[in-house]
Amino acid sequence: MTASTSHGFNQPLGGNEMPRFGGPATMMRLPTQTDARGLDVAFVGIPMDIGTSNRPGTRFGPRQIRDESRMLRPFNMATRAAPFQSLQIADIGDVPINTFDLKKSVEIIERHYDGILAHPCVPLTLGGDHTLTLPILRAMAKKHGPVGLIHVDAHADVNDQMFGEKIAHGTPFRRAVEEGLIDPQRTVQIGLRGTGYAADEFDWGRDQGFMVVPAEACWHKSLTPLMAEVRAKLGSGPVYFSYDIDSLDPAYAPGTGTVEIGGLTIPQALETIRGAHGLEIVGGDLVEVSPPYDPHGQTAVVAANLLFEMLCILPGVKRR
Amino acid sequence: MTASTSHGFNQPLGGNEMPRFGGPATMMRLPTQTDARGLDVAFVGIPMDIGTSNRPGTRFGPRQIRDESRMLRPFNMATRAAPFQSLQIADIGDVPINTFDLKKSVEIIERHYDGILAHPCVPLTLGGDHTLTLPILRAMAKKHGPVGLIHVDAHADVNDQMFGEKIAHGTPFRRAVEEGLIDPQRTVQIGLRGTGYAADEFDWGRDQGFMVVPAEACWHKSLTPLMAEVRAKLGSGPVYFSYDIDSLDPAYAPGTGTVEIGGLTIPQALETIRGAHGLEIVGGDLVEVSPPYDPHGQTAVVAANLLFEMLCILPGVKRR
Amino acid sequence: MTASTSHGFNQPLGGNEMPRFGGPATMMRLPTQTDARGLDVAFVGIPMDIGTSNRPGTRFGPRQIRDESRMLRPFNMATRAAPFQSLQIADIGDVPINTFDLKKSVEIIERHYDGILAHPCVPLTLGGDHTLTLPILRAMAKKHGPVGLIHVDAHADVNDQMFGEKIAHGTPFRRAVEEGLIDPQRTVQIGLRGTGYAADEFDWGRDQGFMVVPAEACWHKSLTPLMAEVRAKLGSGPVYFSYDIDSLDPAYAPGTGTVEIGGLTIPQALETIRGAHGLEIVGGDLVEVSPPYDPHGQTAVVAANLLFEMLCILPGVKRR
Amino acid sequence: MTASTSHGFNQPLGGNEMPRFGGPATMMRLPTQTDARGLDVAFVGIPMDIGTSNRPGTRFGPRQIRDESRMLRPFNMATRAAPFQSLQIADIGDVPINTFDLKKSVEIIERHYDGILAHPCVPLTLGGDHTLTLPILRAMAKKHGPVGLIHVDAHADVNDQMFGEKIAHGTPFRRAVEEGLIDPQRTVQIGLRGTGYAADEFDWGRDQGFMVVPAEACWHKSLTPLMAEVRAKLGSGPVYFSYDIDSLDPAYAPGTGTVEIGGLTIPQALETIRGAHGLEIVGGDLVEVSPPYDPHGQTAVVAANLLFEMLCILPGVKRR
Amino acid sequence: MTASTSHGFNQPLGGNEMPRFGGPATMMRLPTQTDARGLDVAFVGIPMDIGTSNRPGTRFGPRQIRDESRMLRPFNMATRAAPFQSLQIADIGDVPINTFDLKKSVEIIERHYDGILAHPCVPLTLGGDHTLTLPILRAMAKKHGPVGLIHVDAHADVNDQMFGEKIAHGTPFRRAVEEGLIDPQRTVQIGLRGTGYAADEFDWGRDQGFMVVPAEACWHKSLTPLMAEVRAKLGSGPVYFSYDIDSLDPAYAPGTGTVEIGGLTIPQALETIRGAHGLEIVGGDLVEVSPPYDPHGQTAVVAANLLFEMLCILPGVKRR
Amino acid sequence: MTASTSHGFNQPLGGNEMPRFGGPATMMRLPTQTDARGLDVAFVGIPMDIGTSNRPGTRFGPRQIRDESRMLRPFNMATRAAPFQSLQIADIGDVPINTFDLKKSVEIIERHYDGILAHPCVPLTLGGDHTLTLPILRAMAKKHGPVGLIHVDAHADVNDQMFGEKIAHGTPFRRAVEEGLIDPQRTVQIGLRGTGYAADEFDWGRDQGFMVVPAEACWHKSLTPLMAEVRAKLGSGPVYFSYDIDSLDPAYAPGTGTVEIGGLTIPQALETIRGAHGLEIVGGDLVEVSPPYDPHGQTAVVAANLLFEMLCILPGVKRR
Repeated sequence: MTASTSHGFNQPLGGNEMPRFGGPATMMRLPTQTDARGLDVAFVGIPMDIGTSNRPGTRFGPRQIRDESRMLRPFNMATRAAPFQSLQIADIGDVPINTFDLKKSVEIIERHYDGILAHPCVPLTLGGDHTLTLPILRAMAKKHGPVGLIHVDAHADVNDQMFGEKIAHGTPFRRAVEEGLIDPQRTVQIGLRGTGYAADEFDWGRDQGFMVVPAEACWHKSLTPLMAEVRAKLGSGPVYFSYDIDSLDPAYAPGTGTVEIGGLTIPQALETIRGAHGLEIVGGDLVEVSPPYDPHGQTAVVAANLLFEMLCILPGVKRR
Repeated sequence: MTASTSHGFNQPLGGNEMPRFGGPATMMRLPTQTDARGLDVAFVGIPMDIGTSNRPGTRFGPRQIRDESRMLRPFNMATRAAPFQSLQIADIGDVPINTFDLKKSVEIIERHYDGILAHPCVPLTLGGDHTLTLPILRAMAKKHGPVGLIHVDAHADVNDQMFGEKIAHGTPFRRAVEEGLIDPQRTVQIGLRGTGYAADEFDWGRDQGFMVVPAEACWHKSLTPLMAEVRAKLGSGPVYFSYDIDSLDPAYAPGTGTVEIGGLTIPQALETIRGAHGLEIVGGDLVEVSPPYDPHGQTAVVAANLLFEMLCILPGVKRR
Repeated sequence: MTASTSHGFNQPLGGNEMPRFGGPATMMRLPTQTDARGLDVAFVGIPMDIGTSNRPGTRFGPRQIRDESRMLRPFNMATRAAPFQSLQIADIGDVPINTFDLKKSVEIIERHYDGILAHPCVPLTLGGDHTLTLPILRAMAKKHGPVGLIHVDAHADVNDQMFGEKIAHGTPFRRAVEEGLIDPQRTVQIGLRGTGYAADEFDWGRDQGFMVVPAEACWHKSLTPLMAEVRAKLGSGPVYFSYDIDSLDPAYAPGTGTVEIGGLTIPQALETIRGAHGLEIVGGDLVEVSPPYDPHGQTAVVAANLLFEMLCILPGVKRR
Repeated sequence: MTASTSHGFNQPLGGNEMPRFGGPATMMRLPTQTDARGLDVAFVGIPMDIGTSNRPGTRFGPRQIRDESRMLRPFNMATRAAPFQSLQIADIGDVPINTFDLKKSVEIIERHYDGILAHPCVPLTLGGDHTLTLPILRAMAKKHGPVGLIHVDAHADVNDQMFGEKIAHGTPFRRAVEEGLIDPQRTVQIGLRGTGYAADEFDWGRDQGFMVVPAEACWHKSLTPLMAEVRAKLGSGPVYFSYDIDSLDPAYAPGTGTVEIGGLTIPQALETIRGAHGLEIVGGDLVEVSPPYDPHGQTAVVAANLLFEMLCILPGVKRR
Repeated sequence: MTASTSHGFNQPLGGNEMPRFGGPATMMRLPTQTDARGLDVAFVGIPMDIGTSNRPGTRFGPRQIRDESRMLRPFNMATRAAPFQSLQIADIGDVPINTFDLKKSVEIIERHYDGILAHPCVPLTLGGDHTLTLPILRAMAKKHGPVGLIHVDAHADVNDQMFGEKIAHGTPFRRAVEEGLIDPQRTVQIGLRGTGYAADEFDWGRDQGFMVVPAEACWHKSLTPLMAEVRAKLGSGPVYFSYDIDSLDPAYAPGTGTVEIGGLTIPQALETIRGAHGLEIVGGDLVEVSPPYDPHGQTAVVAANLLFEMLCILPGVKRR
Repeated sequence: MTASTSHGFNQPLGGNEMPRFGGPATMMRLPTQTDARGLDVAFVGIPMDIGTSNRPGTRFGPRQIRDESRMLRPFNMATRAAPFQSLQIADIGDVPINTFDLKKSVEIIERHYDGILAHPCVPLTLGGDHTLTLPILRAMAKKHGPVGLIHVDAHADVNDQMFGEKIAHGTPFRRAVEEGLIDPQRTVQIGLRGTGYAADEFDWGRDQGFMVVPAEACWHKSLTPLMAEVRAKLGSGPVYFSYDIDSLDPAYAPGTGTVEIGGLTIPQALETIRGAHGLEIVGGDLVEVSPPYDPHGQTAVVAANLLFEMLCILPGVKRR
């Protein structure tokens, strides 16, 4: 796989060198390498869906997001961010999870991110079901201590258990609080909605100190003002950004497993990410893309764009 | 089919007892019974599409709505409504329509609802094409006299005839006025739009006394203020709520038969239902879901949620 | 194919004469003729996709738009426009492009439109990829001189070259400026967004005198005020309206080839067209509908409606 | 719509005149006319599905078969038949059925075919559900007396009633025998299989004199020998050919409503039609194509080809 | 859910009582009960896919098979079997597996089948991935001792490990031999094919005493003669029948997870089951139906039919 | 991208190292390199569809074939071929065609294959439309002189022109004969069928000396005997194998552009390739896979398997 360069940085393979429908099916058609050595940012895939409780398929999320990232050109027209003139970025492939054992997979992921974080590198993760954020946060906390968290999602994911299990895609942020991986005072949840097992289940996070913004509070308006509040709450210090694609209304992102109606719009999603610019983002993920439920890949197109937007707000990215 | 209970009421089968992708394919995985005896609310299916004028398929609407209702948990997080701690609710199956004869089917439906309404039970109907609202209103009017009506739809459905026929999915509300089944002064139509056979065809309802709100009047804003006007217009007395899924923009609900662009958003749909809280709802339907045009079921997910929201505004439902 | 008439004008075949799912698969089930003789307006198809750079399929756009136009009734309920009581309108079929040679196809299209424009007829074109607008503008300019342009699109389409080629679906408006086909001072671009090869590539048009409105400037609001500015900028004189379906957010129009997230909503699309009423529209196109990526035809339904809306704003159309 | 000619006969629009993906969406891109005057063969559509008992959608069968017939070139390479050098053929459009009333539709169809058969013309019908064969046979019998019948189908369609109704898609051949429309001694049924309401329900036809060939008797072999027997049984005299697409295994024809596994293969289907060459075919139909269940049109491609093969065996077609 | 009866036996709900597209979504629209008490045969669902190694989705297999079983009528036309005049049959719902832990799920399944087999009842299982056959065989062996096995599949499923795990959908028959659950001398594998990790991996079974019939040995011919050999090999004594839908060529059954080309045809599949008539079948399963990869349900239609055919060969079923 | 080895040869990434749904989306998850240096066999993609005359989409063929090749394990169970223990094999990526100019693309391909053939390497090509075989044969003939040809296809592809053009996907073998690229006496065409522009158009090849085997001659039987004749006709000397996926019946391969019914079965396809073992194969291609028409990838699974089978018959591949 060729690694073209400009200013010494890896560049996505351009449409004038190879048609968009050809070339390597890597993230943004970037060069690949097998570890994070020498990288400022690494795209990593976690092909997993065994933590999911309704529709499966997120195991194919990384493949389809990469495939559908093929249209992305190197500059962000809205923010004028120029990540490929600022940082060394590559696709470092997938984590070899054990698809027959969720608990072992969680351990494999943690060890894998320990390896990535041994380098001064920001991982941006292509999921995969939301269970994966727990082992990433475990690795993050070892390096950074408890991190701030921006969590955009339809669900709070703070269940104590699911079917008697502590580890599943609805529990990671409960565990993260219990294990001291995130700082509840620097944690924000945006987009929560739907039905629940108890009328007060979004209050658990509030009781820990989270800022919780239900979807209803987002309807019919820009989220740019909200993000100013979010930046104020998170202040300085490391921040992890976990974006669950089901935060969006299913009209925009049908390819996911636990669908809730009445979600965010795409402009709002872009505002949440662009509005985090200036924070010290140390990692991010985009989870719960399920290709079998969106075979033509529209959800993956959204996911690829949101990951690119996350890249564009990382510390050190220049704006032209 | 097991009927688990809490406070003596039927409960939906929970995700910690049976994975969401298993268990009975009834509405919300509720217990079933064959008639309305002892029920406060009955979910009823009418598997019919022979009254439709463009794309068929709503005959499978009840099956797919039930299937896709499997994710619904018992509490409404936004309104804190707790229907299953308030009322006895079951799925009473389908009306055995005669799929080879529309007029006979209309009679079968009326008799079936006479039977349901012999009990003090609110029927919430899973459609099926919109023709079905006429025989339901006939049964309703026998019990309640002319009812108030909230009708959310892309179409007025007040044609005098279609292809020379008095009974079809574009005529029920013309018939309902003529037969005195609804009170025109207590009738509201929301979401009308598209093309027509005459430039003034939305005015017929206005001439009867309807409040008619075209889609254009709903664009770019919350419908919560509108619903305050609606509640004022309807005042006290029985109200029937007929929700045609094609009121939504097809981005949100592609699986329907007579598609019109420029419709309501999901937040607006939720606002129309939540905004009817406090009225004396005596029945409701969700019609025109056509599964063949949305095989992965997104439209049915919307429909199942809107029926749950209707349940949550019924008289007697507690809020926690 | 029968040509029913009213006031002497061709009429779309009505749903009470033939069910909507039958009858000729022409635009709005209108009569056909082989040239523009005697017509005020001609619907024309250009079945082409060989100018496209990512996903193909727009070659089937004209067929699917015609098929999905079957639900359109003759009156516009929102604007009360009555085009079929005002003008003589027909479907004049497709341009026989050479699908193996893009440059020859561009010549074939230009000659074909020379033929149409020999009559006092407004062509409304069903595309086809956006390359087709260049030869249409060449024919237009021969008749009208440089025209004003309303261009609604996700992309500026002002590349100098693509893969070394001057003719492709990303270059027509660069060529149109260079060849003097459009008046840059009377040109507006609405909806631009996404990623680019240079951070300033939307500025090229501004430098020519274009009014450029990126998608971000459209979010969360009505475009009716914007269109007042547009009408002021375009003033009197001939105007061409080129509508690329990818201007819409893919939630509304998934069936297209070069998808960009964060686009216009359907209400905004309708506002851009309805807001052009009063201008001297001399032609229009609706391009980039790719049926293989939307097999149930929702994108084509949108396209058919937008073409009908274009028809409704043409000079001479009465409002009832 | 242009009518190109060769030897004085209508010709399908060729791929070197207009790309296959353009041109009129008529059967084989043939010229149209509104009645059967001057024709040897007429393609007719019946857009109907209200006689069907399971999945609907055949109302769109005629539209999709016409669309997918676009690839058909004028010569049959296997049999060297040259229908367009032998006969005058056109597409005469659709029968305007009343989609809200099955019984009235049956009357409309009969009258429509009376009109066609007033000319010396062979109708080849694009269905539509199988109910339509009854009124066609009624018209046929008025002209020809009881006809011979080749009926290829998964189902015998000889039910006395369905849901108490005499007219439905499972009853036409019972009615045809009762009314003397077909000659039971000259009737053959091929491909029957599946489950039934009684173990002996295929025996009813045998008792009338039918030759009944279940699917199991067709497995793993050519049907060419069988067709020699069929020709012998039918002998001279008029023959009607009714081909239900569900005779095929659903692997070949998934787009249909009442699917039965274990059906015929495509080579066998072609053998049944080609093997009827030499008989006095006076009409034929291809029914039960349901586009919503096969959006990319493979079933319609099969149907278009089988209709072309029927055309190629008509009396008077030359072989080169 | 109503339990209609005839001769005292449960009957599937008929199409003349309720349209096929309505009624309960149980297997063949049969009555349900919560355990196997009083039953000769129980249909059981196991909604599981966490043992699968490529595409997921079989967790929805039981739901879709039940849904698509709605067309099945009570008699087998080919074999004249009349199961519902012979045996008491019901749908006893799903096994509540733990979707977050494969090993625990295997234990849950074994206990569940211990409960079923406490009654003199034959379980016919709707899968679910093939891992489920191991715990069923464990329960079977406790009751019957080592059973004979007919295993129709593309894969031998005799891996020692997958990704280091002993329990997965590619290992059940290795475990079954090791644990003495099946009698290798009375074991037959039919349909094996594809690629492998070693050129001799189909020989392991042969070395145990299995009869192994690769797909290539089945091409182009009836399997009726083969089944005579199979019956001879299995002789008397209990037999378990495990049917993996991927034994079929994907043309017939696209909705599955580990697809191999060149498989059996539907006639061959029917011959393998019908050819097992006369054996002492004590249980059977139909596994690996993955609905997300076949949203219109053709694979599930096949599966429902094959389960009905298994029912028809059970000891005690009369033939009319 | 890691290059694991065994016996010094590249190995496909195994399912016990990385789940099948993860890892690089290269052919068989093989290592990549940018040219053919050191390779015995190179998989090459040509992402092109601008030479196609009906449905487009083959531009995505290479991407989807690679994606769906992920299940392929290294050994062929039927033939016991062990290509990865015999040869050095890699995926060398795509040819950067000019998607806006077919004629330039043909030149780009020829130059690209000149580069590959400068090494002692057999290219196996993932198409792409059939136009691509012409430039490959041009490069082949420069190295080998006129080659023998096995051409499996629904179409003869020997048109003189299409729409007046000499270069298109229906003309390559006419050009190849005219230019002396293939030896007509050593050319075989298998699977031809369908409709044509002249009754004798399959005879042109016969007149050149081709062995032409229409599909009808293949029905209902094994092609193993035919392949013995083919081997005899081709004898010694270099042979090119061009496999058009539309040779298969569309039941097996729906994802293609110019569909013809009545084609080969998968067993027959495997027999044509396996039956070519022993010939001196110097190159091969698999063309006309169109992913938009088969979004779940079944056609690509077939294509990946057939390419693997081609690999298994190459000179030098050992059988275990």
